Amino acid sequence: MSQPVLIDGAWRPADAVSTFQATNPRTKETLPDEYPISSWKDCETALAAAERAAAVMRTVEPEAIALFLETYADLIEENKDALVQMAHAETGLPVSPRLADGELPRTTGQLRQAAAAAREGSWRQTTIDSKANIRSYLDGIGPVCVFGPNNFPFAFGSISGGDFAAAIAAGNPVIAKANSSHPGVTRLFAEIAQTAAEKTGMPAGIVQLLYRLGHADGERLVADPRVGATGYTGSRSAGLALKAAADKAGKPIYLELSSVNPVVILPGALAERGAAIADEFTGSCLMGAGQFCTNPGMVVLIEGVGSEQLVTALTEKFDAAPAGTLLSAAVERSLGDSLGKLLKAGATSLTSLATGAGQGFSHTNALLQITGEQFLADPETMQTEAFGNASLLVMASSVEQAAAILGHLEGNLTGCIYSATTGEDDNAYALLEPPLRQRVGRLLNDKMPTGVAVSDAMNHGGPYPATGHPGYTAVGLPAAMVRFGMLQCYDNVRPARLPRWLRDKNPTGSAWRRIDGTWSQGDVS
Amino acid sequence: MSQPVLIDGAWRPADAVSTFQATNPRTKETLPDEYPISSWKDCETALAAAERAAAVMRTVEPEAIALFLETYADLIEENKDALVQMAHAETGLPVSPRLADGELPRTTGQLRQAAAAAREGSWRQTTIDSKANIRSYLDGIGPVCVFGPNNFPFAFGSISGGDFAAAIAAGNPVIAKANSSHPGVTRLFAEIAQTAAEKTGMPAGIVQLLYRLGHADGERLVADPRVGATGYTGSRSAGLALKAAADKAGKPIYLELSSVNPVVILPGALAERGAAIADEFTGSCLMGAGQFCTNPGMVVLIEGVGSEQLVTALTEKFDAAPAGTLLSAAVERSLGDSLGKLLKAGATSLTSLATGAGQGFSHTNALLQITGEQFLADPETMQTEAFGNASLLVMASSVEQAAAILGHLEGNLTGCIYSATTGEDDNAYALLEPPLRQRVGRLLNDKMPTGVAVSDAMNHGGPYPATGHPGYTAVGLPAAMVRFGMLQCYDNVRPARLPRWLRDKNPTGSAWRRIDGTWSQGDVS
Repeated sequence: MSQPVLIDGAWRPADAVSTFQATNPRTKETLPDEYPISSWKDCETALAAAERAAAVMRTVEPEAIALFLETYADLIEENKDALVQMAHAETGLPVSPRLADGELPRTTGQLRQAAAAAREGSWRQTTIDSKANIRSYLDGIGPVCVFGPNNFPFAFGSISGGDFAAAIAAGNPVIAKANSSHPGVTRLFAEIAQTAAEKTGMPAGIVQLLYRLGHADGERLVADPRVGATGYTGSRSAGLALKAAADKAGKPIYLELSSVNPVVILPGALAERGAAIADEFTGSCLMGAGQFCTNPGMVVLIEGVGSEQLVTALTEKFDAAPAGTLLSAAVERSLGDSLGKLLKAGATSLTSLATGAGQGFSHTNALLQITGEQFLADPETMQTEAFGNASLLVMASSVEQAAAILGHLEGNLTGCIYSATTGEDDNAYALLEPPLRQRVGRLLNDKMPTGVAVSDAMNHGGPYPATGHPGYTAVGLPAAMVRFGMLQCYDNVRPARLPRWLRDKNPTGSAWRRIDGTWSQGDVS
Repeated sequence: MSQPVLIDGAWRPADAVSTFQATNPRTKETLPDEYPISSWKDCETALAAAERAAAVMRTVEPEAIALFLETYADLIEENKDALVQMAHAETGLPVSPRLADGELPRTTGQLRQAAAAAREGSWRQTTIDSKANIRSYLDGIGPVCVFGPNNFPFAFGSISGGDFAAAIAAGNPVIAKANSSHPGVTRLFAEIAQTAAEKTGMPAGIVQLLYRLGHADGERLVADPRVGATGYTGSRSAGLALKAAADKAGKPIYLELSSVNPVVILPGALAERGAAIADEFTGSCLMGAGQFCTNPGMVVLIEGVGSEQLVTALTEKFDAAPAGTLLSAAVERSLGDSLGKLLKAGATSLTSLATGAGQGFSHTNALLQITGEQFLADPETMQTEAFGNASLLVMASSVEQAAAILGHLEGNLTGCIYSATTGEDDNAYALLEPPLRQRVGRLLNDKMPTGVAVSDAMNHGGPYPATGHPGYTAVGLPAAMVRFGMLQCYDNVRPARLPRWLRDKNPTGSAWRRIDGTWSQGDVS
């Protein structure tokens, strides 16, 4: 008997076409609980409930939604031990500091920030033209489907992470599809969220959970007329299949697919602090076995003594560092495949390459190298993402060649340039920044890209294929909420019929609104 | 010898695969000028120039771009007579008041508003986290392709309209594809814009013009890696082909496709002011031969005496009003086809139906009627847009049936509800507003949807298939500019390397920025 699904406010037996079990990646043992692969019937029931929930949520005040999010965050903290243990078993990620002291507080922090952003209301971009009596703001887009990734069971989890928090805070119910590698964690979150929803009087169906779907049903789900939008984080192939289905139906889908996160390290920086940079890079690239969206998977160097020394230092460090546990057999396989593809295209391996080097699913820390010429001969293949503890060094013959390399990059989440503090790399920076800038969501100086601060100024986004649209961020509130809003305009609508946020009187006493062309915290006068 | 195209700042012979000529819709005469249908080679040259222009424009201050837009607006006014005469010849729209006194001032007003919005900078949504030293804002997305519609040769023209103004103000060059029904107007605008660009020192390639492309080349253009985004207004079939191509390449495309703009007229309103409503509706529906995106193409009524009286009054008015000139043979044909499709599906015609009823391309003013039951039996066919001087009356048996009808609507630009001022329709309004609200971009009370005010609170947008994304508006500044920006984040970037808008010092002395969670017009302290 497989685990029940959460639909319309109740745990009920799934209409399952099959079942699956999770695996402990450190022991490779199958975990005991059986989870259902739902049929379309479960999707249909969930969609109908989500449509009803969305209609109710449009009448719920932001304050009430904020209370739900805060109650949920409190209950997550109360259930911390169970969550951390389950996540450790299903993902192999270390209990401490990663899960207990890093990701869990980040997750509850995000939920509380979302609550604050819902209350504060800036995300709505409220605009009032009192003379024409035209008023507009962003309001909930409708039911949001969330497909979370394997690498952050809490902070990007389908019922706990950034997309979930943003979608709920914008006033939408969520239909979560658990990541198949950690169904147990997602179940615990759903239980806690449902308790929080009941405690705070949210409508049935505000949070629903399906564990797994056939590919065709997933594509049908994101294209359903009742769906408002979808948030997806995961592999490029599965993401593009969902995107094609959603695009065809005209349904917004926000994707985070893949990124090699190029890091350019200029000669002056290496002369000045090469050893420190080698440490920084190794730490950033191998942390969590490199399984981060912003892992630095490609390094662009300019030929010279400093770069040669860096290559030697990195090779030693990669060889010496222990190989971490990968999230699943699929990640292990995919990492091997990607490295194989790069080798076949002509990359040289600086380290030994083998799977099973660490505890459970694992791979040796992998460092490959190519020349700038090799990159330019086949930029598409050379940008193959090797998700895990691996990186590709590209040795350019000159700054000009490095600029050409950057000009061939696909869209990425991040791009970094390390340069000397003395100004000697400034000409190179001026040449390299423009092609890099336009191809990444976040540009860094002298800092590795891992560590995505939950800041309102963060952009965790970027041009395709890093995401599906370069105007949006998946991290950082209130900006991430905008993805789950639709622009609603009221033209000549009678005052009593206006939503509270658009009435003459300021809805909170201090909400920012653009009134007759001027930003104001006041009433319409 | 066909007209030259404007590429990379110069008028040059097109690499033409063929040529075409425009037609005067009032006389059905072919106009003398020959225009080229460009090959891919012209697209390729334009794309290369646009990429260079985009790189320069990223370094141009908003003030300089604003001056270009204002100079352009001034020159348009100086060339008003030529523009109006050419537009009259190519579109058949009346010189006055429509072209000379309505659309032209709207167009120059939009360009000046875009200039002001570029200077003021709110559209950038600048956010600074000074503690983490993370700073983000919207900046130009890259070259923008604009495909303008046939019905507004000035205000939505490819080199003069809302998409053009928004794309330029956001710092992007534009590759314009002229609407094939008015190539001469578009040529005049391109000449004036090029003069303005030269006068104000804008880069070559800021404005480029191609008259027409093969379908495959159009699809290749919007998917090209050098393109930032596309704005398209026109027919659903051509728009969806472009959307599919752009979506597949991960390129944002903003579409305005079609809309029947439902108007619900409740019994209390009819009892109170039925005659006035009949006049308002007739004026809105037949103005400009009904060739507006927000033309009221569908009216939902509740069975009863007032509704019967309205039907009689409207039938008389439609019969009595002169039939206007349609924009082209294609519009005339399409209107006849759409009405035929509705008749075949069971609609009754209340007026006589015939083409050629007015001067040139034309059709009798057409009023069709169906029951609510008929609508619900085939909602898709019954929502066929009959673009022109036509509307479909849907007689619902009850308010509940009207709610069901609204629940089956596709996405629309607008939706209106007329209700009694005395409160007697309030229960019906409460039932009908929620299903309508979620399916339209702009909700109106007691007001017809034609007349899209250029207000910062306007939403000229809505759920698919009215547009491609319900979060964006095509009219209203600064909001319309957001479509042509990409979110750019600077993480730990050295102060001198930051764009001016993100530095500690306020870039204009009064720009609104979110600094450490608070909206401010000050410097970072």
